[in-house]
Amino acid sequence: MSEQSAARAAELDASDELAVCRELFSLDKETVYLDGNSLGALPRHVPDRMRDVMEREWGQLRIRSWDESGWWTAPERTGDRIAPIIGAAAGTTVVGDSTSVNVFKALVAAIRMADPARDEVLVDATTFPTDGYVAESAARMTGKRLVPYTPGDPMGPRTAAVLVNHVDYRTGRLHDLPGITAAAHEAGALAVWDLCHSAGALPVGLEAHEVDFAVGCTYKYLNGGPGSPAFLYVRPDHQSSFDSPLPGWNSHADPFGMTPDFTPGTGAVRGRVGTPDILSMLALESALDVWDGVSIEAVRAKSLALTDFFLEHVTLESVTPAAHAERGSQVSLRCADAGAVMKELIARGVVGDFRQPDILRFGFTPLYVGFADAERAAAVLASVLA
Amino acid sequence: MSEQSAARAAELDASDELAVCRELFSLDKETVYLDGNSLGALPRHVPDRMRDVMEREWGQLRIRSWDESGWWTAPERTGDRIAPIIGAAAGTTVVGDSTSVNVFKALVAAIRMADPARDEVLVDATTFPTDGYVAESAARMTGKRLVPYTPGDPMGPRTAAVLVNHVDYRTGRLHDLPGITAAAHEAGALAVWDLCHSAGALPVGLEAHEVDFAVGCTYKYLNGGPGSPAFLYVRPDHQSSFDSPLPGWNSHADPFGMTPDFTPGTGAVRGRVGTPDILSMLALESALDVWDGVSIEAVRAKSLALTDFFLEHVTLESVTPAAHAERGSQVSLRCADAGAVMKELIARGVVGDFRQPDILRFGFTPLYVGFADAERAAAVLASVLA
Repeated sequence: MSEQSAARAAELDASDELAVCRELFSLDKETVYLDGNSLGALPRHVPDRMRDVMEREWGQLRIRSWDESGWWTAPERTGDRIAPIIGAAAGTTVVGDSTSVNVFKALVAAIRMADPARDEVLVDATTFPTDGYVAESAARMTGKRLVPYTPGDPMGPRTAAVLVNHVDYRTGRLHDLPGITAAAHEAGALAVWDLCHSAGALPVGLEAHEVDFAVGCTYKYLNGGPGSPAFLYVRPDHQSSFDSPLPGWNSHADPFGMTPDFTPGTGAVRGRVGTPDILSMLALESALDVWDGVSIEAVRAKSLALTDFFLEHVTLESVTPAAHAERGSQVSLRCADAGAVMKELIARGVVGDFRQPDILRFGFTPLYVGFADAERAAAVLASVLA
Repeated sequence: MSEQSAARAAELDASDELAVCRELFSLDKETVYLDGNSLGALPRHVPDRMRDVMEREWGQLRIRSWDESGWWTAPERTGDRIAPIIGAAAGTTVVGDSTSVNVFKALVAAIRMADPARDEVLVDATTFPTDGYVAESAARMTGKRLVPYTPGDPMGPRTAAVLVNHVDYRTGRLHDLPGITAAAHEAGALAVWDLCHSAGALPVGLEAHEVDFAVGCTYKYLNGGPGSPAFLYVRPDHQSSFDSPLPGWNSHADPFGMTPDFTPGTGAVRGRVGTPDILSMLALESALDVWDGVSIEAVRAKSLALTDFFLEHVTLESVTPAAHAERGSQVSLRCADAGAVMKELIARGVVGDFRQPDILRFGFTPLYVGFADAERAAAVLASVLA
């Protein structure tokens, strides 16, 4: 890389309003961490919070913490912290279980809400595999047929629901959430969105675009920690008819009544199942503090500037679209011997990941990745390839 | 209480081989904690382990920890730590998701394994409610009929599977696991056991009694922390036909192959779904260290001695059976105005819990509850009632 590139990166970093956020994370100067789309970095303050959770809330208060430390309401409270980041209102989003389990809840519920005569469930053909596996199970258990879907394909009178990833995990392509949701509604179907690679990376606008259901993970751009619980969004006017295939005691109207019959609770709570994993949940809740005062629009603007900058400085073919409207917050480059190249990049301190068969994937997390990082990553990549 | 009772308690504590375990837990002298059947006490060493997990494994190694810190294999590794406590072999037990979600997996899988002509699913009529709610959903989604079951009821040619709680959460009654499992097999049906109130409290003998599937929670007698992930046991000879309704990418034969078709993995891994909640999982794994060198038979012997002692010193009617063979590790007493009485007990440092409509519930966790605790609890109860 030229001195010019480094100077340009320094200039961009100097005028970056989000640059101050980097200090909130545990990062080292030796590493350019471009894998926040797989596991977000640790917000520095989380271990202290968790020591208090373990030693005082669990260790001293014990069972009393379910009430006194607010454990019982953590799933809704944490959902309300995520809601503004994905363009949702308070009371619509609940945290718990894995993304896969939430895909099952949302898709089965969507199918049950559709006209029973509609027999097809559409899933984007390049979906993250688990969505496809779970959708296959949801279709099997509700007597529907799974149909691979490519955005733009027609939906029709047989379509019950469509499940689409907002951002393709492999290519980084951003799908047209407003357009596909509107097309589903036009066809009389329901739209379920997987936001794993967009929540915390770009504006989603769930409410504005009348999305029916959405799920997403919290350990990528939301930095909740390894395997932190996922979220489930149910559109407010669907909440009262949300018929979960996993009706556990936590979603009951009176969970401590211990009644033999299931009476579902009202609101976001209906998306809960069993006892929530409190340690992981509270680590996530604490991690969300880094979003205080941050606008998702600013995150998106920086994300596009970062990926533009990186794309300008690499020579490999990008499978991530050049058009901003079609780009998530990652850059995927096609590369011969990509596995070995990524190994060498990591050895030299540039951490991205390898996706089969020939993709180098670099995630750009605007809260803690800067332009100098992008410049260094491009320079190291060039030297590895040379 | 008489001085005689206190002397007898001191004598029993002095000859208790498990008394040394108490020091491993975070407890205070002011409290008699008899709610370990709701939330186990904190093993003292867990917060230090979790600081390392957060600061080094997540904070420094980040994504590399999935391999280098063994995160990826934690569900099976932790399952293998639980297996000997429940009488299971290595490779049969996997940790992840909530108990409710695991009931769904196990029961649907059992139904699918049974002769399709069998149309009834039996669930014990006094089950912990969530088991009933989830069983209703499992039956609905597989086209079966749910039938309330009382241990001793006949099973027959219509029975596909039976779901039973090993210990009734309300009364503390221990059900006959060997007998009911054998009766199910005799009738050509499969037996699914919920071990929430027996795992870590008494010998279960899953392998010896040829149990088909079992699930259980880890935050009660296994002290894994609030909402720590549950376990799922699949009998070795059922593993290859285990057909999970939640086939996530973590249960795939080649999870990073990202293939569009689902090919299930072999062994316990097939019980996994999505990305496991690593913080909760590793806290549980660490908490299991207190079991090193402890035999579940010794735990059971002490549990029975403790509950015998407590029963001898209380005057209220016990709904927990007097017969050892029918008693779990708790004592439930019938009491007018039980809610208010429990509130007062807690105010005086004796922590049990209240179950609708008239039950005082006291859990005895042999690893950290002693006879002096039982004596004090009985004395405080007598003074509250007086």
